[in-house]
Amino acid sequence: MAEVRNKQVILKEYVSGFPKESDMDIIEGTVTLKLPEGSNNEVLLVKNLYLSCDPYMRILMTQGPSSLTPGSALRGYGVGRVLESGHPDYKKGDLLWGITNWEDYSFVSLDQSPFKIEHTHVPLSYYTGILGMPGMTAYVGFFELCSPKKGETVFVSAASGAVGQLVGQFAKLAGCYVVGSAGSKEKVELLKNKLGFDEAFNYKEEPDLDAALKRYFPEGIDIYFENVGGKTLDAVLLNMRLNGRISACGMISQYNLTQPEGVTNLMNIIMKRIRMQGFIVSDSYHLYPKFLEFILPHIREGKVVYVEDMAEGLENGPAALVGLYTGRNFGKQVVVVSRE
Amino acid sequence: MAEVRNKQVILKEYVSGFPKESDMDIIEGTVTLKLPEGSNNEVLLVKNLYLSCDPYMRILMTQGPSSLTPGSALRGYGVGRVLESGHPDYKKGDLLWGITNWEDYSFVSLDQSPFKIEHTHVPLSYYTGILGMPGMTAYVGFFELCSPKKGETVFVSAASGAVGQLVGQFAKLAGCYVVGSAGSKEKVELLKNKLGFDEAFNYKEEPDLDAALKRYFPEGIDIYFENVGGKTLDAVLLNMRLNGRISACGMISQYNLTQPEGVTNLMNIIMKRIRMQGFIVSDSYHLYPKFLEFILPHIREGKVVYVEDMAEGLENGPAALVGLYTGRNFGKQVVVVSRE
Repeated sequence: MAEVRNKQVILKEYVSGFPKESDMDIIEGTVTLKLPEGSNNEVLLVKNLYLSCDPYMRILMTQGPSSLTPGSALRGYGVGRVLESGHPDYKKGDLLWGITNWEDYSFVSLDQSPFKIEHTHVPLSYYTGILGMPGMTAYVGFFELCSPKKGETVFVSAASGAVGQLVGQFAKLAGCYVVGSAGSKEKVELLKNKLGFDEAFNYKEEPDLDAALKRYFPEGIDIYFENVGGKTLDAVLLNMRLNGRISACGMISQYNLTQPEGVTNLMNIIMKRIRMQGFIVSDSYHLYPKFLEFILPHIREGKVVYVEDMAEGLENGPAALVGLYTGRNFGKQVVVVSRE
Repeated sequence: MAEVRNKQVILKEYVSGFPKESDMDIIEGTVTLKLPEGSNNEVLLVKNLYLSCDPYMRILMTQGPSSLTPGSALRGYGVGRVLESGHPDYKKGDLLWGITNWEDYSFVSLDQSPFKIEHTHVPLSYYTGILGMPGMTAYVGFFELCSPKKGETVFVSAASGAVGQLVGQFAKLAGCYVVGSAGSKEKVELLKNKLGFDEAFNYKEEPDLDAALKRYFPEGIDIYFENVGGKTLDAVLLNMRLNGRISACGMISQYNLTQPEGVTNLMNIIMKRIRMQGFIVSDSYHLYPKFLEFILPHIREGKVVYVEDMAEGLENGPAALVGLYTGRNFGKQVVVVSRE
């Protein structure tokens, strides 16, 4: 029975404020590469290949009913290969994406409904991004919740991130005018030159977000894909059009604040008949096959591209995760555990 | 040609903060009871009978693109009788409800699409309330936007007002559990004893709204009918259930503030997959016949009741209107111009 080293990224203690690398620790133990006794074929042994850094993970690091337990490994989305399975639907060698731990080897419960990866002509890491949870998030949040119509105007915040870069490209496929905001000159260039956004701006260089939005949307915004919350949402509300739709996906600007910023312009929701819809993508995973049918041909034909920021090695995981909250990542932040 | 006295309530100047009676003036002029030359049959001469005091009117008293003009009469919903008409669809003697001026006699443009009153076995003043704009507001905002299901939990703020008292009764008809908040002991008694709310509380006696809502909704709120905004909305967000719906109808607590209160708990919209939908009822007036079909039998059979607060005479209009914003009204606030 092979016993091998198992490196883990653990949460040292609950986080308040911005997360720091020192809130996490790298520890090394061993694991026996064998399914535990009595696991009733409901557990897989998986070798983790890629781990996904996602903004929502910060929420699980604050003390609360659904938070991570200090001392245990971080949990999040990842891509892995099945080493042992007692379940007929999963075979040794299968590739999966789904919830896993931040470590070399994980026991993944089938309760977590891991997705089998059937299409491998694309980079495997894509299953942490465009072909995984963030891709589905962009698809459901934009197409299903906002029902975009040709000629409508779309604003995306955190636009070069894992989800935002896809929302912008989907908006162009739908015949919309799309503007993104991001936090650096390089990201703005990326949005305009590689990702096909009509316009983009660096929010850090806009002291007056309302004025910036009025410049890019003189007629107002039909659809806002909300990734950041707080002041941005407040400025957007002033610039929404009648019957506008807000897909509320995340509020990354608020996750590290002890007291969230107050949003003051909510009367616009009434006056402009706005629909604001919050969602959690896992409620819509039944749409995944439909999504793959839509997205795979677009990837193959180069009509949708995807920008990844790869951190090499589990030991660089904490820095990669922490970097999300200061915008250090350039595109989808991935941690490479093993290229096999 | 009869020339008669025409009393008017005019806006003296733009209002900031809470409106005062002295922001308005009563003036008396004369009017010739004859359609103006060149009005091309597109104007009716109407004798106003009842005027409606509605919270949204405050918004038109702040300087802005759609505000009232200082020196001119207030405008709002009312009930009147046609004295002269050149249009074949409206006859002398017809009763109408719709937008009119705060004065004895008005020229009403057909652009304003006044509704003809066909059912007169109910008090005529009902067409400023249960059978007019507020009734439609409760109907559209509750049934159309919230799709209530039997057994769901409903919270209504400003629950004894023109709209709220109906939302509560509609919620009971739909088989829901409904709790209302209001601003006095008498209103709370009204909600529980006459209007059939399951529970009601006086928000002025609840220093911790979150705790009050947890007391009445230990399992959370499925549907919130939003009339007040601000701190109430913030506390409600903490208590919404998964897939909750918020019908955003008004935010009366915010209308008199120079700077609206900040709402800090919007992350709940995401985590709980909440849909918040703003609306303006006039967008849905095509549903008015369907609404009448629903509501008239309920009134006739005494299954829906309606509480009105009548102010007698135009000269008492300013006090009646101002009273809305401190909750002095007990039920729907109406101004009686003439009982004919």
